[in-house]
Parts: sequence; C-alpha cells; structure tokens
Amino acid sequence: MRISELSVKSGVALPTVKYYLREGLLHQGVQTAATRAEYDESHLRRLRLIRALLEVGRLPVAAIKQVIEAVEDDSLPIHKMLGTAHYALGPTVEPEPGEDWRLAREEVDRLVADLGWDIHPAAPTRDELAQTLVRMRQLGLHIDLKPYVEATTKLVSEFEMGLVPFQGPRDAAVEALVLGTVLYGKVFDTLRRMAQESESARRLRPHP
Amino acid sequence: MRISELSVKSGVALPTVKYYLREGLLHQGVQTAATRAEYDESHLRRLRLIRALLEVGRLPVAAIKQVIEAVEDDSLPIHKMLGTAHYALGPTVEPEPGEDWRLAREEVDRLVADLGWDIHPAAPTRDELAQTLVRMRQLGLHIDLKPYVEATTKLVSEFEMGLVPFQGPRDAAVEALVLGTVLYGKVFDTLRRMAQESESARRLRPHP
Repeated sequence: MRISELSVKSGVALPTVKYYLREGLLHQGVQTAATRAEYDESHLRRLRLIRALLEVGRLPVAAIKQVIEAVEDDSLPIHKMLGTAHYALGPTVEPEPGEDWRLAREEVDRLVADLGWDIHPAAPTRDELAQTLVRMRQLGLHIDLKPYVEATTKLVSEFEMGLVPFQGPRDAAVEALVLGTVLYGKVFDTLRRMAQESESARRLRPHP
Repeated sequence: MRISELSVKSGVALPTVKYYLREGLLHQGVQTAATRAEYDESHLRRLRLIRALLEVGRLPVAAIKQVIEAVEDDSLPIHKMLGTAHYALGPTVEPEPGEDWRLAREEVDRLVADLGWDIHPAAPTRDELAQTLVRMRQLGLHIDLKPYVEATTKLVSEFEMGLVPFQGPRDAAVEALVLGTVLYGKVFDTLRRMAQESESARRLRPHP
C-alpha cells in the first residue's frame, strides 16, 4: 500500500508517519520509484505498537525508540525484548541512602527468593517496591504482603500471561504485553476502588 | 504545644504550618496570649492527614480543602466523608459522545447491579471504568472482567477494609483510607509486574 493508505488504515496522521520514518521508529518501505514506496502489514503492526506505547503506555519517544530497537534486534531473545518494554512502563526509582532503604530492599529480595520468582537481580521493580515499603514505614504503616502476592500470582499466571502471543510476530507480543499491563492495570485499580466503596457502605450501613 | 513544636513533631515546615492555618486546612489553636496559641494532638493528626493527601495521594490543595471540609462537617455521615476523599483520589473522566461510550457505561452499570455492589449511581469510578473499556474496544481487546472482580472483591473485603478504623477520629479514618488506597495500590501494581516478569521467564525458558 502507499503511505497515504497506511496513514488512513493506522489512524496515524501522514506527517506523523513521516516523522516516525525519519526517526527510525518505523522501518522503511520498499522503494518502487524515486518518490514512491510500498508498505505492508508489518508497517501497520508497527504503527499499532507505537500508538500503544505512546497513547496507552504514555512512554516518551526516547523510551519507545529503545523498545523498537529491542523488537528489531532478532538476536535478542523474546524474553529480553519483552523485558525492555516492560521495564520502560514503570517509573524510574533512585535508591535512597540510609538504613530504611537497605532494609526494605533486603525484604524485597528475600520475598522474591522465598517465592521462587524468576526476576532479574537488577529489575527496576525491586527498587520500586522497596521505595513504597520505605514510604509506608515512614508513615507508620506495616503491610502484610501476602494477600497481594496471592492475588497477583493468581491473576498473572492463570489469566494475564495467557493473553500474550509469545509465538507470534515480535511486534504483536510487545503490543499485547504493553496494552495488557497498562489497561488491565487500570481495570483492576478502578474495580478495587469500586469494591472499597461498596464494602465501606456495607460496613457502615445501620443494622435493621 | 507551641506552633514551633507542632512543626517539629509533624515534620511540616513552620511557614507551611502557618499557610495551612491561613487557608483553613488546619484549625486554629487555643489563643493563650496575643501572639501565642496552644496546639494539641488533633492538630498533629490533621497535619498527618494533609501530608498523606498531598504527598501520597498527590491531591491538589483545592481538593484537599474539600476533603477537610467533609472531615469537619460532623453532620456528614462517615461514609459520605470517606467517599469525598475516595472520589478525589481518582482521575476526572468526562463521558464521551457516541455509541461506544453508551454501551460501555451500560456494561459497567449492569456489572455493578449483577454483583450487588453498593455504589452511588453518580460515582466517578463508573465513568472511569467505562473509559478504559472504550479504549480497549477501540484497540480490539476484549476483556473478561471476572478474574479482576474476583481478585478485587477478595482483597478488599477480606483484607483492605479491615485496616480502616471506622470507629476512631474522622481524620484518622480518612488518612488510613487514602494511604491504603494509594500505597497498597502501588504495592499491587509493582508485584503484578514482578509476577509478569517471572511468569514470562518461566513460559519462555527452554525446556531441559
């Protein structure tokens, strides 16, 4: 298809498609004349992925570039490629000096080891969880992580990971992972606040 | 205690304490001399609440004012007071024109009715969930809400709502609800991404 058709089918404005081509986010089409190139399904799929990362994942263009590089590097195993996109979805957390941080981070590492979870030693989620634990301690909250571990393990292993087409094209797997992580996360967060309202109403309703 | 001691004990800088007094977020102390007032535990508790709403809930000062007004209005039942704080924690979602929105919103209302959840007809979470459903449909994702409903119901009713001291001072109940909603939400979100990494590694590891 021509670039104009690619724009219409993907819902991405023509100048934006051209920008992605210049920036290397979208791979070049096959040149059929001096000012004419042909695009195919792989370009459509790539534009879907970029939109997912940009509009749903709210990733900055620099981070999207990193993800696309990982998608295009066929020597990178699929797990590493998905990890690049996955890590980019979380906030960047800087370790803090002091004893509070050291203890919280130790607790996280112990939890991961006890659960037998297969998580990279340098995964940013370790610091992210440590930071939240530090904040909670500073506010005098002591959390029991067990109900949360149980809920996440069940959801992720029985349901969420079944939605990622690990065997399909690399673009499609990353897209599914990003959309799933962000959108299903929002669904959970909203349903949780709905359940809180309902349960709070129930507990406070005067007994008949 | 004097205002300087209140500042030290609460960890809120003195000019900020004075600003909260001027803005009416913090109630006045008991005047003991022309330039001197006494503060007590209720002031400390209020400052803790303001910090929780500001630093953890990331609420704008205007929203914090609304929450404080609800806390101070003793004629407001505790459920309504907690609801004011709770609703302020979510994003503001504007209903969109069109059939997609109408169908998604109908689906949400039907879900709430089927579950027998006790949720206000105008609760903003209804629109929030509808918006995410619309986005998913537009991206061709069809979500099964059941595993999410099950996970949230279990977490909230068996665990989270037990942490809110409904019978204590109104400040303390709101503080616990806000901290719990935001911080436990972060814990869940991070653990979920950790479980995803682990499960993805497990599924993709070459079989021995």
